[in-house]
Amino acid sequence: MRLSFDEIQKEIKRVFVKYGMTEEKADTCARIHTESTYDGIYSHGTNRVARFVDYIKKGWVDINAEPTVEKEFGAIKILDGNMGPGVLNALYGTDCAIELANAYGIGMVGIKNTTHWMRGGTYGLYAANKGYIAIMWTNTESCMPPWGGKECRLGNNPFVMAIPGPEGKPALQLDMAISQYAYGKLQVTRLAGKKLPFPGGFDKDGNITDDPGAIEESMRIMPIGYWKGSSFSFMLDILGSALTGGIGAEDLDKKGMGSCGGASQVIIVIDPKQTCDRSYMSEIVEKATAYIKSSALSENSTGIYAPGEDYVAFRKQHDEKGIFVDDSVWAEIKTL
Amino acid sequence: MRLSFDEIQKEIKRVFVKYGMTEEKADTCARIHTESTYDGIYSHGTNRVARFVDYIKKGWVDINAEPTVEKEFGAIKILDGNMGPGVLNALYGTDCAIELANAYGIGMVGIKNTTHWMRGGTYGLYAANKGYIAIMWTNTESCMPPWGGKECRLGNNPFVMAIPGPEGKPALQLDMAISQYAYGKLQVTRLAGKKLPFPGGFDKDGNITDDPGAIEESMRIMPIGYWKGSSFSFMLDILGSALTGGIGAEDLDKKGMGSCGGASQVIIVIDPKQTCDRSYMSEIVEKATAYIKSSALSENSTGIYAPGEDYVAFRKQHDEKGIFVDDSVWAEIKTL
Repeated sequence: MRLSFDEIQKEIKRVFVKYGMTEEKADTCARIHTESTYDGIYSHGTNRVARFVDYIKKGWVDINAEPTVEKEFGAIKILDGNMGPGVLNALYGTDCAIELANAYGIGMVGIKNTTHWMRGGTYGLYAANKGYIAIMWTNTESCMPPWGGKECRLGNNPFVMAIPGPEGKPALQLDMAISQYAYGKLQVTRLAGKKLPFPGGFDKDGNITDDPGAIEESMRIMPIGYWKGSSFSFMLDILGSALTGGIGAEDLDKKGMGSCGGASQVIIVIDPKQTCDRSYMSEIVEKATAYIKSSALSENSTGIYAPGEDYVAFRKQHDEKGIFVDDSVWAEIKTL
Repeated sequence: MRLSFDEIQKEIKRVFVKYGMTEEKADTCARIHTESTYDGIYSHGTNRVARFVDYIKKGWVDINAEPTVEKEFGAIKILDGNMGPGVLNALYGTDCAIELANAYGIGMVGIKNTTHWMRGGTYGLYAANKGYIAIMWTNTESCMPPWGGKECRLGNNPFVMAIPGPEGKPALQLDMAISQYAYGKLQVTRLAGKKLPFPGGFDKDGNITDDPGAIEESMRIMPIGYWKGSSFSFMLDILGSALTGGIGAEDLDKKGMGSCGGASQVIIVIDPKQTCDRSYMSEIVEKATAYIKSSALSENSTGIYAPGEDYVAFRKQHDEKGIFVDDSVWAEIKTL
């Protein structure tokens, strides 16, 4: 079905208020879920509302908890998320990092003991739309074997880099998990009776495969770049813990409070006014985008895209036709 | 052949002094090349000396240039590398970032207009061995097609993350280029008559292939994680330029002053004393390392390794047997 931004936000807000959030916080969280849906990140927008409510019911998210300051030094602030709603913690953390960047050119906020921030890109775009460059990541419970192993020990640890667009144009953003495919993508592909476009993991016998069902069964999803992504994910996990005083994959697994329950997040924000002129930054972004697009297309290519063009395309489509929401997802939200 | 650390450093120093470096700078640069060799990164150690000399002769490196401060604000310092030796610029930049981290908890140095820093991991380990966490990268001239294209428009842009090890133990480090394989690896594999362990690019007809020769011919090496690495490399390039006021891939290509001639480097250093206790950081690193190693090994696995175990293994082997240097590489250095 197709709905308006307001219809979606209003309904999600109703649910969050019902489960104990204040009007104001519910409004913010509902807006973020709706924005993610508007940007085409359904998995962390409308499709995630029911699970968030489930986490509240299980006591895995403390709906009224607020972040508290643990440590402060110069351009660094460490927050305890107190297991409050990840979206509110991360928004607050990003605001703090922006304040620090205003004062020192760069600011870092570490949030320990927080919960799922939903779409990592929310905070990257939030900072970039205010004129800042952002580097952010979260660690997560394990869902991926380390390279050379076959049991899950690594998270897929989303990593975000965002930069303002050329003046008057949308921000550019990389928002990637370190697994080649999310489990959601495996499921959707399997249900459609299709193969993955590229091998995405191993079957239970250790054969590399593009069969999504075989990977779901083995739980042996593959990191990007094989051994490289495995190491990258590991570093995001340990740096995530060390830069926040929080916990890593093993303790998240032991805690067992759902996806990202107790996670550690790092938010680095930089004020590019202190590094180059605004007009120069616009030029960099425009020039680099034009440069990649100047390449001849490869065989069967659907085009060459700069990071973030996908969300801009979704917005356009959703503006024209209304925002897509899966019928069954919407029906479930209505029952909450 | 096998040589001692001193033998290698002394000979490389002789060469650098001959081509116009001061004794002190030549000593430092020779030490860095020797350390990279000692750590098993031959490609950016002994194997790179002749090319560095070639760049000096061509005027692509200004052997006596020193970095100058372009901008300073809070925890940010922007340097102009003035096309001086990349190793000296990057070491100086790392020292500045450490000073900023001491004052503000986090510090960022951007270096524009610099030259090849050789092994990125040099500066990560340098910071980590002094007790800091580091995130660093450089942009480079293009050598890889963007996803969906077949002409080179992206650099393989090395990305570094380093953290001190558990107390008394070696630092952990990720030091990866964004291409799945370096051209050097393709060449070595082809010369050995072998295939790559995993597909590493496309042949000239656009077929994905593990044949190194076919990829060398097409120049269509693949980024890690396909479209993900392509976007990651793009972001490293534009953030590299925006955070330094420097130039990106297209202008590096136009400049045509060899590998990384005029590159932009970002050096972020964080003092973990401001984020958690030293003993907690040790615990994080030990625990996470033990956790990945607790997984059952996959079929044909040679083991599960934490990032950086490779350089530790090389040091051990080189301590026992002497440092490996390719005969022809050494012979060439002798003629310089």
